[in-house]
Amino acid sequence: MPKPRQIILDCDPGHDDAVAMMLALGNPTIELLGITTVGGNQTLEKVTRNAQSVLVMCGRDDVPVHPGSGRPLVRRIEVADDIHGESGLDGVDLPTPTRPAEDSHAVAFIIDTVLAAPTGTITLVATGPLTNLALAARLEPRIVERVREVVVMGGGYHVGNWTPVAEFNIWVDPEAAAIVFVETWPLTMVGLDVTHQALATAEVEEQVRATDSPLGEFFIGLMAFFRTTYREHQGFTDPPVHDACTIAYLIDPAIVQTRKVPLTVELRGEHTVGMTVADFRSPAAADCRHQVATHLDHAGFWGMVVEAITTLSAETTHAREPKSHIETISAAHLKGD
Amino acid sequence: MPKPRQIILDCDPGHDDAVAMMLALGNPTIELLGITTVGGNQTLEKVTRNAQSVLVMCGRDDVPVHPGSGRPLVRRIEVADDIHGESGLDGVDLPTPTRPAEDSHAVAFIIDTVLAAPTGTITLVATGPLTNLALAARLEPRIVERVREVVVMGGGYHVGNWTPVAEFNIWVDPEAAAIVFVETWPLTMVGLDVTHQALATAEVEEQVRATDSPLGEFFIGLMAFFRTTYREHQGFTDPPVHDACTIAYLIDPAIVQTRKVPLTVELRGEHTVGMTVADFRSPAAADCRHQVATHLDHAGFWGMVVEAITTLSAETTHAREPKSHIETISAAHLKGD
Amino acid sequence: MPKPRQIILDCDPGHDDAVAMMLALGNPTIELLGITTVGGNQTLEKVTRNAQSVLVMCGRDDVPVHPGSGRPLVRRIEVADDIHGESGLDGVDLPTPTRPAEDSHAVAFIIDTVLAAPTGTITLVATGPLTNLALAARLEPRIVERVREVVVMGGGYHVGNWTPVAEFNIWVDPEAAAIVFVETWPLTMVGLDVTHQALATAEVEEQVRATDSPLGEFFIGLMAFFRTTYREHQGFTDPPVHDACTIAYLIDPAIVQTRKVPLTVELRGEHTVGMTVADFRSPAAADCRHQVATHLDHAGFWGMVVEAITTLSAETTHAREPKSHIETISAAHLKGD
Amino acid sequence: MPKPRQIILDCDPGHDDAVAMMLALGNPTIELLGITTVGGNQTLEKVTRNAQSVLVMCGRDDVPVHPGSGRPLVRRIEVADDIHGESGLDGVDLPTPTRPAEDSHAVAFIIDTVLAAPTGTITLVATGPLTNLALAARLEPRIVERVREVVVMGGGYHVGNWTPVAEFNIWVDPEAAAIVFVETWPLTMVGLDVTHQALATAEVEEQVRATDSPLGEFFIGLMAFFRTTYREHQGFTDPPVHDACTIAYLIDPAIVQTRKVPLTVELRGEHTVGMTVADFRSPAAADCRHQVATHLDHAGFWGMVVEAITTLSAETTHAREPKSHIETISAAHLKGD
Repeated sequence: MPKPRQIILDCDPGHDDAVAMMLALGNPTIELLGITTVGGNQTLEKVTRNAQSVLVMCGRDDVPVHPGSGRPLVRRIEVADDIHGESGLDGVDLPTPTRPAEDSHAVAFIIDTVLAAPTGTITLVATGPLTNLALAARLEPRIVERVREVVVMGGGYHVGNWTPVAEFNIWVDPEAAAIVFVETWPLTMVGLDVTHQALATAEVEEQVRATDSPLGEFFIGLMAFFRTTYREHQGFTDPPVHDACTIAYLIDPAIVQTRKVPLTVELRGEHTVGMTVADFRSPAAADCRHQVATHLDHAGFWGMVVEAITTLSAETTHAREPKSHIETISAAHLKGD
Repeated sequence: MPKPRQIILDCDPGHDDAVAMMLALGNPTIELLGITTVGGNQTLEKVTRNAQSVLVMCGRDDVPVHPGSGRPLVRRIEVADDIHGESGLDGVDLPTPTRPAEDSHAVAFIIDTVLAAPTGTITLVATGPLTNLALAARLEPRIVERVREVVVMGGGYHVGNWTPVAEFNIWVDPEAAAIVFVETWPLTMVGLDVTHQALATAEVEEQVRATDSPLGEFFIGLMAFFRTTYREHQGFTDPPVHDACTIAYLIDPAIVQTRKVPLTVELRGEHTVGMTVADFRSPAAADCRHQVATHLDHAGFWGMVVEAITTLSAETTHAREPKSHIETISAAHLKGD
Repeated sequence: MPKPRQIILDCDPGHDDAVAMMLALGNPTIELLGITTVGGNQTLEKVTRNAQSVLVMCGRDDVPVHPGSGRPLVRRIEVADDIHGESGLDGVDLPTPTRPAEDSHAVAFIIDTVLAAPTGTITLVATGPLTNLALAARLEPRIVERVREVVVMGGGYHVGNWTPVAEFNIWVDPEAAAIVFVETWPLTMVGLDVTHQALATAEVEEQVRATDSPLGEFFIGLMAFFRTTYREHQGFTDPPVHDACTIAYLIDPAIVQTRKVPLTVELRGEHTVGMTVADFRSPAAADCRHQVATHLDHAGFWGMVVEAITTLSAETTHAREPKSHIETISAAHLKGD
Repeated sequence: MPKPRQIILDCDPGHDDAVAMMLALGNPTIELLGITTVGGNQTLEKVTRNAQSVLVMCGRDDVPVHPGSGRPLVRRIEVADDIHGESGLDGVDLPTPTRPAEDSHAVAFIIDTVLAAPTGTITLVATGPLTNLALAARLEPRIVERVREVVVMGGGYHVGNWTPVAEFNIWVDPEAAAIVFVETWPLTMVGLDVTHQALATAEVEEQVRATDSPLGEFFIGLMAFFRTTYREHQGFTDPPVHDACTIAYLIDPAIVQTRKVPLTVELRGEHTVGMTVADFRSPAAADCRHQVATHLDHAGFWGMVVEAITTLSAETTHAREPKSHIETISAAHLKGD
């Protein structure tokens, strides 16, 4: 078996972030080095606590949680409480964290981890606003060439949700997104075009229910709330579990197909601010560093999620050793050049 | 047979404008009251002369040509000579006009015609930048509620050509487009989404060649040039005959299907200026005045065009009386309030 | 005595527009060919009627009033009723017009007058939003090189009123202002920098009162209301009679000093839309077509106004022949080229 | 004698930054805790080395230099080599640094210093683009309420240099400036309005020459080059020594007078991006946190500078103990919430 893919998950849980965590923790091809949090779906305080609670549910409090930015770079913060509720993870009882959040800032953790690892090994997965990634790239430009890939749940080439053409994560901090998209690391945008296909249908719930596990019940509780708000505010029948598509893409690119296309983030439009502008007019250049997710294998995707829930549920019924995690690197690396 | 639909065609010929003219002139369900011209694909002087030449080719110099705006409202003029050539209609010999262009300005002709006709009868079809229509709406606001429909070739909800997300006609004069789109008349946008389906394939050329007519040869000469530039500059195999889709929609909405959706023109974006922003997030309101073309019946469309060429070719071989055309109305109608 | 300067006054009366009318009508060096109106300080209907009433007060209903645009080119209309009141000319009884407004549109009147007169003779003075002038320049580009000068009350190089850096007339229709400022006619901007010096002080009122005339009383009534709103909404002790400074500049440039400087209108700023950006970084080029008013001779200015009121009051007590005015030109001139 | 004011100088030397350093180092009321550098007048590498060289010239290599951001947050970097030359400090021989730049990043140094000191003691003086200060405020929001004051050389309420209305430091990184200006710390903007008064005249040079010192010669060499580029590119007779005005303001507010006024940074204008928009329309609110420098006492200012050069020259001729400087704080403070 090949070495698992090492990732940092930068997120703002959030119902679909929680599923992304389950998939990352429950699939053997992914090694989750740490979770970093960012204000988005709810305030930084709430989403950090939510991340800790989901780790408890997954029996994986060995994974460190590093709190990061509580607000966008330039614009005012706006949270998505009409979608994710007052807690950011409404619909379930959240277990009390069994381990405190880390002292070191999300941005420091990202920088230290990337600089400490061999070039081309660390993948950054972002499922919230891109504030932390942008700050890391600006504070320590050397990380850009060392990161293996940046995978972003955000944007859309033909779909918006917060505005007609902008998706929430990009729209909330478009300047951060512009920084992340313009940098020279390989970037895969898993946007609404594909995440709106990741619907948690009744059939999916049946499969999860069949795992007969507390984590399965947790998932079902989350989806029940998420379905309600998505019906009311976005006109969906079943809720789209956006964020988990990023992890599915990393596990098996056949599940989430992609296409190369240059991307730019609009910062100034009156009706288009936060849009991820894709240029499909001609075939992408050979050195194009951007790709967008275009198609989801719905059955394959949910099969993965159910398997991850099953795996995690089996693990949590046995005593287990906490995995070691990478040491936080000294601030000496926070140095320009 | 019902009364033909009375239209004014505001255009900047332009290879595909020429085909729109043939279709409008050669189909019995359309009555072309006059042609108004606007600087766009080429300068006002050239496109006006081109319109006159196409009328000669069609044997229809009874239709008046009113020159209009030579430049956009606010931005600098930019012409599409890489697509339409030095003359705006490269690839054929253009016959000398047999009748001068009218004295009265395109904007005055539009206002006078609309005010003189019963409410709800005149349709404005625009296949160039929207400068003339915008000026008419601002000079004489009363036309807005009297126009039956505005049909625009321009924009696109998922496609751009001049920029990743903007189409040439809208991009050239976005302020004019914003005026036309925000006014309360019913507006149908026939954008690149559908016009990129209107390809003049080899099979189409065969059908036209079978008409064995000078106008058919003229069409073939135009398409030969258009194919070359579209291959070179836009990566197309066959050229898309955008503008004619507007007339096809008016003749038979089954040929050009549409969907209601609110539209806005972006004026300020760095990467999105001139984009026609469509909001597909929820079903359009019942009173939505905008619709976009979504699907073209390719065979049906080209069948119409071939039939129009056939009809016009038959007519031009017989002596024929010039049709009367509406008298230019006095400037007294150029009055506010 | 030299030939009087022939002007068209494009305005939206408005208290200070009314004083501009008095000065233009009562000074022998100015020949007011006609008044064109534009929605601004109040709706088009109200300001047109106000212009007619002021002409009656001045005994000069021989001057034609041509209604123009009721709204800005692109943006929504906004009126300044907190400054000018419900009627646009609150504070006095307005006499009933003795002559109807003209049938021909303001834009047609401007175009016809300029084309009919020798090149370099007609001056356009605008004291409201620049919608009419912009439409005229776009409909008939040949007027641009025929106009002697455009004098605009609007903008400011270091001062704003409607926003920190934008003045009302420009802010209301910035696209129209951009058109007027970018055209190649000579343009003098009489902005807030100088018009905020044109204060109707108690001493000024004393001088006007000494004319012992109905028109003087009318002036004093207007200023009383204007003082109240300027105190309440703009923090002024005495009201600034902006618009009249344009006429004073034309009568005697020693009264309103100017300086050459290139100007541009900002259309896209979040905090600066409608700002008139002046580039003072280096001396203006020899062919700079823009100048800004920099200094007002307060005593000289008000001396002119008092004299005009005196002159008009004397005239209205005698029977007088209506002056002839230029005939409205046929719409044949509304023609591109 | 009261405790000296503790400052961090964030700069991009730069001729006038060098004079700011001399003034800060040579005046007993200022304690310079450290220098942080930012790409601006020249690249980060060059300005960092320049800061080190100026410290050597001043005999003060006890002051640590922390390199910071090499580029703006969102926009591309642009340097002012036409003003400051190839090295960023052309016109003199630069001594080799006698002490290496620090390992810890400028942003970490700012955060650590502010968190380690009592609330309300540390003043941040910025004379380059505001990238470092913006990053610090976003990474560690708690510094905002702990900083005593932010003093910025940048912007202008009535003057621009890089564009008609924008100054270089703000224009280079307007998003960073927007962050710094919108935060709730007290901010004093020492803009071009006042720094264009800080001219290094021939008389000033005579006074400096009279110090008969290597540092004086260094100053004169710098000014000779600065005068040349300011004459050629900005039309000045004598060069304005912008950055030193910030320190002069801190030493004696009577030398640099200020006025309260709310400020905003324009991010989107076509002609106004990077403008510092000041709202002078009404008296500033009592809790207004912004003030702008309005007037400079030219003689008083240059007297201070000459005295500082004299003091530093006297000191460097004697053996002296390096002053201790605050220890770099551990990265544990780089923590959200």
